[in-house]
Amino acid sequence: MRETNANSIRSISITTPRSSSAYGIRIGCGLLGDLGGWVEQTVGKDVKRLLVVSNPAIFDIYGERAVSNLKRAGYQVSTWLMKDGERHKSLRSLASLLQFLSENRFTRSDALMALGGGVVGDLTGFAASVYLRGIPCLQVPTTLLSMIDSSVGGKTGVNTEFGKNLVGAFYQPKGVLIDVETLGTLPTRELTAGFCEAVKQGALSGNKLFRQTADFLRSHSPDNITEPDRQIELVNLIDSQVSFKAKIVKQDERESLDRDDAKSRKILNFGHTFGHALEKVTRYRRFKHGEAVGHGMIFAAHLSKILELLDQNELEWLNGVVHQVGNLPTLKDINPTNVLDAFQFDKKLVSESLQWILLKKIGQPVILSGKDVPSSAVKQALKKVLS
Amino acid sequence: MRETNANSIRSISITTPRSSSAYGIRIGCGLLGDLGGWVEQTVGKDVKRLLVVSNPAIFDIYGERAVSNLKRAGYQVSTWLMKDGERHKSLRSLASLLQFLSENRFTRSDALMALGGGVVGDLTGFAASVYLRGIPCLQVPTTLLSMIDSSVGGKTGVNTEFGKNLVGAFYQPKGVLIDVETLGTLPTRELTAGFCEAVKQGALSGNKLFRQTADFLRSHSPDNITEPDRQIELVNLIDSQVSFKAKIVKQDERESLDRDDAKSRKILNFGHTFGHALEKVTRYRRFKHGEAVGHGMIFAAHLSKILELLDQNELEWLNGVVHQVGNLPTLKDINPTNVLDAFQFDKKLVSESLQWILLKKIGQPVILSGKDVPSSAVKQALKKVLS
Repeated sequence: MRETNANSIRSISITTPRSSSAYGIRIGCGLLGDLGGWVEQTVGKDVKRLLVVSNPAIFDIYGERAVSNLKRAGYQVSTWLMKDGERHKSLRSLASLLQFLSENRFTRSDALMALGGGVVGDLTGFAASVYLRGIPCLQVPTTLLSMIDSSVGGKTGVNTEFGKNLVGAFYQPKGVLIDVETLGTLPTRELTAGFCEAVKQGALSGNKLFRQTADFLRSHSPDNITEPDRQIELVNLIDSQVSFKAKIVKQDERESLDRDDAKSRKILNFGHTFGHALEKVTRYRRFKHGEAVGHGMIFAAHLSKILELLDQNELEWLNGVVHQVGNLPTLKDINPTNVLDAFQFDKKLVSESLQWILLKKIGQPVILSGKDVPSSAVKQALKKVLS
Repeated sequence: MRETNANSIRSISITTPRSSSAYGIRIGCGLLGDLGGWVEQTVGKDVKRLLVVSNPAIFDIYGERAVSNLKRAGYQVSTWLMKDGERHKSLRSLASLLQFLSENRFTRSDALMALGGGVVGDLTGFAASVYLRGIPCLQVPTTLLSMIDSSVGGKTGVNTEFGKNLVGAFYQPKGVLIDVETLGTLPTRELTAGFCEAVKQGALSGNKLFRQTADFLRSHSPDNITEPDRQIELVNLIDSQVSFKAKIVKQDERESLDRDDAKSRKILNFGHTFGHALEKVTRYRRFKHGEAVGHGMIFAAHLSKILELLDQNELEWLNGVVHQVGNLPTLKDINPTNVLDAFQFDKKLVSESLQWILLKKIGQPVILSGKDVPSSAVKQALKKVLS
């Protein structure tokens, strides 16, 4: 290669302005009864064809009514069912859905609709974001976790064999429809996992949302959730939860790596370091993600207390509310050494240094770098929860 | 399902503002000699690890020097080679690259570098956009086509068995380095295909860029491209070409479906309707994409003339310049009926109605809807080019 000739170097600067995107989340009971009307309001009549993505368990309960409702509203409807379970949120399922879309000649003026929980929503959203470099997507979450968590924030993706959500996109749906009636058919453990996430967001947000969540849980049982009054309380709770998450995401859509202030999207990882470790050491078989986060919050609270950030009263308050969500799978036989190893794994994957989301009090999260948290404190907190 | 209770419906509106992204394109001769310095200028020292993605043919010529240069600048470097050819720009190659990234624990503070032509660049950019929902990507195009075409605009993606670029993302690189010296080792047909694209952009831009391109081609031969004076002219030509494309893309980053004005990004599809059809009826075996677009421009010019948009002089001017790029594969045995069928296929895939990009004169493209172009005119134009 010749020496660079400075006279012949050109530099061009490219700027691509991005428009902001906006969408609405509609929350109520019985909203699936007017699914077609909502779709028309949301994407209009320009969309001709819809692909409803779901899994057999959900589709058995809601699929037929949903499809006929959409057809009555004038849409052409196809369906694509995937197997249930986190391990099917894979590159393989993604490829198979994308093949279906291209084989059936879906165009940029057609749309996808996810009808189901987080697995269905994440896969569908990701497929919509990359098919023809983006076609419209509608989210109809049917689990509590996906209603309050994945309905806001635009995170979509799939797992690889080396970790969860390692491949994906930030992609906003055209609209989200939350029908709390679907929670009436949700398995108890799924409800429990969802409420853990609700407690987490309450603990991050402040006394108001935390109390509203605790109040709901105090009179909660899986049997009374379909009662009309409870359904209305549930609409209010989900409304508050979604609004909180929306506020956080708006401040930091892409979860900037270099932010560590209390408004960073990272605070939503409260309870996740220990939670991820629990999932990993039990090979993703014992805990649902929300359940692991339930334990993770208590661990993070103990660690906060040991570091003299959080006082005993707040620790007990959080602990009490987490235990109201329902039974969490046991920690009895978990080996602390394995958990410590898993922390190292988490650290390497996400960035070079581990970050802890801790609490000064309910509503006052703080992000600490791993190097500011002595390993003796971490071990002490492990003893508290694993004894 | 119960009737909707209007009192219990909540609506939340979510807005996600997007920041604009900016990056630089550096064009010159011999720039690969300071690859490490450029990377450092572009992404800084925060990036520790680089994965260089390439194919064996390119890597054999430039790989070793590039890698040692990057290492000297202090980067950890790994390489991932893919097979050459459009058919390897597939979901399968994508999955394999993503597995490699996750298996080797690449993080959001590492980066990918594409060293090669459009196939390497499109796959690498797409993988970078979805791995951990986006890690930094650097583009070092080594073919004329990828220098003037894919270096601007952020289109990345892969093919499925049902069509080209059906899956992908809009994703901007952190920087593009164009070293025109690499064109000295480019096979003649690849050069020809790239110059077709240059003629296309000239024809869309106006007399100035069209003349600059034609002037370059008048004295062009594959043998003189490495001469110092020619290299400097090449830097100037690529600079002008990239600047034109940047202007178009800036006006319409996402290629809005509903735009049909002369500033829409769609105008870049000039020559593509016939070009795609040629590729399809010859099963993607006879023509390189750029070569097919070369024929496509002449077809579009004839169609424009038949519709009384373009006059005879301009048609001949365009025709003359297209023929200066080099030999294009023959059209002798192409069956007009097959081409007409392929037009229908193209139409269904992209949207419900076919759109023609035609010319009123050099630098004055016009977008016509399929229904405004009588099929008799299309058949007449086919006769002109297929006889």
